[in-house]
Amino acid sequence: MGSSYCWLSLLLLSSAILNIYFVSNSYIEGKGKVKVKVGWSEEAAAKAEEVASINCSNHGRAYLDGVISEEDGKPVCECNTCYGGSDCSLLSPNCAANADSGDPLFLEPFWMQHAASSGVVVAGWHRMSYVFPDSTYISQQLETHIRLIHRLTRNALTHGKRIIFGGGSTQLLNAALYALSANLSSPASVVAAVPFYPLYKQQADFFQNNNYKFQGDAWLMRNSNSNVIEFVTSPNNPDGNLREPVCKGPSARPIYDHAYYWPHFSAIPSPSDEDIMIFTMSKLTGHAGSRLGWAFVKDEEIYTKMQMYITVAEMGISREAQVRALQLMKTILHGDGKDLFNYAFEKMSDRWGKVRQIFSKSKRFSIQEIPPLYCNFFERVRGASPGYAWVKCEREEDIDCSGVLLAANIIGREGSRFNSDDRHVRLSLLKSNDDFNLLINRLHKLVDQEQAVSSF
Amino acid sequence: MGSSYCWLSLLLLSSAILNIYFVSNSYIEGKGKVKVKVGWSEEAAAKAEEVASINCSNHGRAYLDGVISEEDGKPVCECNTCYGGSDCSLLSPNCAANADSGDPLFLEPFWMQHAASSGVVVAGWHRMSYVFPDSTYISQQLETHIRLIHRLTRNALTHGKRIIFGGGSTQLLNAALYALSANLSSPASVVAAVPFYPLYKQQADFFQNNNYKFQGDAWLMRNSNSNVIEFVTSPNNPDGNLREPVCKGPSARPIYDHAYYWPHFSAIPSPSDEDIMIFTMSKLTGHAGSRLGWAFVKDEEIYTKMQMYITVAEMGISREAQVRALQLMKTILHGDGKDLFNYAFEKMSDRWGKVRQIFSKSKRFSIQEIPPLYCNFFERVRGASPGYAWVKCEREEDIDCSGVLLAANIIGREGSRFNSDDRHVRLSLLKSNDDFNLLINRLHKLVDQEQAVSSF
Repeated sequence: MGSSYCWLSLLLLSSAILNIYFVSNSYIEGKGKVKVKVGWSEEAAAKAEEVASINCSNHGRAYLDGVISEEDGKPVCECNTCYGGSDCSLLSPNCAANADSGDPLFLEPFWMQHAASSGVVVAGWHRMSYVFPDSTYISQQLETHIRLIHRLTRNALTHGKRIIFGGGSTQLLNAALYALSANLSSPASVVAAVPFYPLYKQQADFFQNNNYKFQGDAWLMRNSNSNVIEFVTSPNNPDGNLREPVCKGPSARPIYDHAYYWPHFSAIPSPSDEDIMIFTMSKLTGHAGSRLGWAFVKDEEIYTKMQMYITVAEMGISREAQVRALQLMKTILHGDGKDLFNYAFEKMSDRWGKVRQIFSKSKRFSIQEIPPLYCNFFERVRGASPGYAWVKCEREEDIDCSGVLLAANIIGREGSRFNSDDRHVRLSLLKSNDDFNLLINRLHKLVDQEQAVSSF
Repeated sequence: MGSSYCWLSLLLLSSAILNIYFVSNSYIEGKGKVKVKVGWSEEAAAKAEEVASINCSNHGRAYLDGVISEEDGKPVCECNTCYGGSDCSLLSPNCAANADSGDPLFLEPFWMQHAASSGVVVAGWHRMSYVFPDSTYISQQLETHIRLIHRLTRNALTHGKRIIFGGGSTQLLNAALYALSANLSSPASVVAAVPFYPLYKQQADFFQNNNYKFQGDAWLMRNSNSNVIEFVTSPNNPDGNLREPVCKGPSARPIYDHAYYWPHFSAIPSPSDEDIMIFTMSKLTGHAGSRLGWAFVKDEEIYTKMQMYITVAEMGISREAQVRALQLMKTILHGDGKDLFNYAFEKMSDRWGKVRQIFSKSKRFSIQEIPPLYCNFFERVRGASPGYAWVKCEREEDIDCSGVLLAANIIGREGSRFNSDDRHVRLSLLKSNDDFNLLINRLHKLVDQEQAVSSF
């Protein structure tokens, strides 16, 4: 009797301890220091966790809205390039290393490591209205956090400038073009210094408009007195160099595309303080799929016209993207706010180091030089860490450089796409670890072959 | 000893029961019948629930990304029109009833009632890429669910038609215009039958393009042999009537704006089977803020051009909006799939009944007639339930009808905005319960006054 009493007491104690554990587990700290129980959102949370726990061998991931497997009714693994099999464990041996697109998946592991702080629950009734309470399409909280991040990274002076959100920087580039070219005495020439991001030309050509015409290389319009609108991409896509406007005429107006002006990709020598500066989530947090960009605009009239563009085009951008972006920004700003930037810089810097080392052994290929610079964010001189390698084929016969790389099973983007020549190819360095590792592997082989041949 | 033994046993039993409760509570049924514990997503879930639990007196709600109160650090209540105070409990007695915009908040209570099934967790690493695995900007799962909803409601034949997502129907209207007007022998005339939704003209005028020109009323181009593109809004905004194209010439091409072609707002006499049919979340689920619309397109060439428009404009739309939309569609389709449609129809029908009853007593005002029709979805003849009342001031002197209503503290949208005359005003019937109740209140007074005066 005594022993069973003792045994019962012990059982009760452990049961009570288990109870305490469960109670403390199901009540967790809210922001305002109030403890809240998880109730209606539990179903959504469980679904998200179930999907996240699907094993894709670290070479892919499953998503809530992925295609459903016929076998087990769960979303299938979506594998990284060159990986396959139901759990992404199979590497196709002869698959090409794809370094074509600027898909910023290099930051995916960062967000997986910050799962708890970066997730967000979108309630069924979240922001159904066309507008926020101030009748805008813009979350004031998100705006505030974006401005804080610019202050932290010291890459832009945002004080005294209005903000506009758009569908990626993509939509804002065109909105700025519309705004600057409206009501001019004569149609504007749209230019960018070669090599330049292909979208500028593609957009201007597609949205045929009487107010402007794409004219190609900025250097041809350098001293023009006519209306010129110049896209100034700084750091530049494809070559990663910081840029100033080429066109300095009295009627020249620049649009600064600062997509890559973050410590990830470049030193921040001084804050940008231009009339129109465009940024994007895609290259800050790596969320290209959110289609969320922002522009800072100094001039009230240009601001109003750009805002009108966004209104007429689609009445502002998704509230889901905005509430999610806010949570990502909060995660970035947590603590001293340097975690993401350290992670991104170290990764891109390491990748650039590897690429440089390989090409340093080559006479057949060269890549761009980016000088070390003092960085106001890191408060020291730092080396380059560009998003892309801008590769040149040096041999006279190699006029189709992307063809040369393709023969080595590497997919790059042809120089002619950037209004340059096909002696150049852009290789993307900001994709997933798998993509980058495969690229390095193939580049090694290619350059080793060259040395093997030359050593005969 | 015996009694304490018994007592202990009881305590142990209740503790064990409590444990079972906690275990069953923290493990919940996933879709694939696997039980999953809530872990990393708990923080996001707790935050969402804390915000949802903020008391806004049923006259407002707080959101995760709302402005933060300086007092308690929590998001502030965002109150419905005319309500104020920190908990939205104060009604401003002389505040105008705002029936201007088409903000579809009438469905908000439905989603609050379906909190558990309609919420979604967006993980920090959710769909960072520019593209889905099939290299499109479109969730296949969402597409499948959208097609299922059309099959359920019998409002459109989608088989053999491609789908395109855009930033609300707004962006797709313009994309369709671009696609239809490209490569024509002469610029197209863009028309719509009066009264029409103002955006058609606004967009065509704003995106000044050589390929088309807005020409106003479709009836003026009825038998034209030239290139005509007609927006056919069916049911029509503002008057709710089902429409056919007015322009029947050999070079006339219609764009069907079916935003309101849902059982909420109209009988569904037969499924639409047109070349270009445009729909939007805004008027199906009430989520205007998501900016998610879709177009079904029969012709491959037009499809490709519209797709190109979306690509060049902004490279597809937000993945957050898509994963959230999918969850909403799943909630709609749950069970027999009729809950949302019953709710929406009953509410809109009830509202229309109230509005009609008031105006039936008036000689000063009249509203549109919409005949009862057989509805393929409800499988019976049903009365009208339009999104808007299209009010006419009948007195000769009342040429400014919106002014007449404004004097009675009611804000409507002037008829001239719809290319009609200002004897007409559109009153929105699809806003929040608070907005509608206030509108009914004011309309009652206005019509009662008329009767009081006429009884002298």
